[in-house]
Amino acid sequence: MRIGILGSGMVGRALATKLAGLKHEVKIGSRESNNPGAAEWVSTVGSLASQGTFAMAASFGEVVILCAKGDAALDVARQAGEQNLAGKVLVDVSNPLDFSRGMPPGLLPDLSNSNSLGEEPQRRFPSSHVVKALNTTNCEVMVNPQMLAAPTDIFICGDDEGAKRVVTDLLRSFGWERVVDLGGIAASRGTEMFLPLWLSLMAKLGTPHFNIQLVRRAVS
Amino acid sequence: MRIGILGSGMVGRALATKLAGLKHEVKIGSRESNNPGAAEWVSTVGSLASQGTFAMAASFGEVVILCAKGDAALDVARQAGEQNLAGKVLVDVSNPLDFSRGMPPGLLPDLSNSNSLGEEPQRRFPSSHVVKALNTTNCEVMVNPQMLAAPTDIFICGDDEGAKRVVTDLLRSFGWERVVDLGGIAASRGTEMFLPLWLSLMAKLGTPHFNIQLVRRAVS
Repeated sequence: MRIGILGSGMVGRALATKLAGLKHEVKIGSRESNNPGAAEWVSTVGSLASQGTFAMAASFGEVVILCAKGDAALDVARQAGEQNLAGKVLVDVSNPLDFSRGMPPGLLPDLSNSNSLGEEPQRRFPSSHVVKALNTTNCEVMVNPQMLAAPTDIFICGDDEGAKRVVTDLLRSFGWERVVDLGGIAASRGTEMFLPLWLSLMAKLGTPHFNIQLVRRAVS
Repeated sequence: MRIGILGSGMVGRALATKLAGLKHEVKIGSRESNNPGAAEWVSTVGSLASQGTFAMAASFGEVVILCAKGDAALDVARQAGEQNLAGKVLVDVSNPLDFSRGMPPGLLPDLSNSNSLGEEPQRRFPSSHVVKALNTTNCEVMVNPQMLAAPTDIFICGDDEGAKRVVTDLLRSFGWERVVDLGGIAASRGTEMFLPLWLSLMAKLGTPHFNIQLVRRAVS
């Protein structure tokens, strides 16, 4: 499959490397068409890898993954272009973290409680199929869930069932055995609002390499 | 120990019943001094149980537990009275859920992101020792964590180490083996903002009887 990655930071490069390792063709998009970090990544990964602008990556991908910083994500989606994302699965991995009011960070008020960063691109690009996924864990765990000591749960949500099947298959190929579908895209509110607890836990545990396992009632 | 419970709803009664079962003396506080639900609870539990106003329950308790509805909790604390809570451990179990803007509920904007329901009583009653605890799970799981199929984690935070030791001992007596201290009371932001995800999960799993287990990296 051809996959476009919107964002050349740590998360984007981790996902791009994993996807190329799984033999997908991957184009990383950045603000400029020749990003030094992305160029280095391309030279490391080889023939399945390429880079370009956000619009070029969106146009290239059959599936497009949005993994920009939270306060930039909507601008990145706008630069990617509605027509380049039309009819496609747009996987939103970003979190609307707000570091402007001190630590611990909260979420951007306009993108929490009664809205979310998952819902906004779906509202702006109604012909795309947005699936929120992977935003509740660290990027190294995202692409290697088996590094953890026990199976853990990863959440997806979105309004299109077919798009969620595509993303579920991708996550399974990463090694995620427990993909929990929380329903429509508004469930992004919950998975994004988990971030402040996640950040507390990272500080407490002294590592970003953890996740949560849902535990239900014992069968009696 | 003498324990005051601020709130006669499902959470308050579940905690009160468990605590009386552990041989603590428990007084449930309500808005009126003779609440019918609390009276029924007293008649069921017997000699270790009593009821009264919020102020009477706060005055009675060596430890006081705040478990009112989120939008009422600060008014309940005010009615309980600063002088009745001075020098005491105040365990805050409540969540600032906001059902006024449709489903799924978010949190009250003034009590999320850069503030929390755990921080407010600590700010208003600086001579009390507020510990946020138990707000990330259902009340039947709170008092019987062993009903779940595997050990799970429960979070506390607060500014006073001695108060956190008292609460940790209480939680251990309930059966919680994994009490995770997240630091100062501002960590309430994270445990409260977990609620929208918790509500999504309750809908998905079809039961409130679940919790999360933290899973770290496998030891290699």
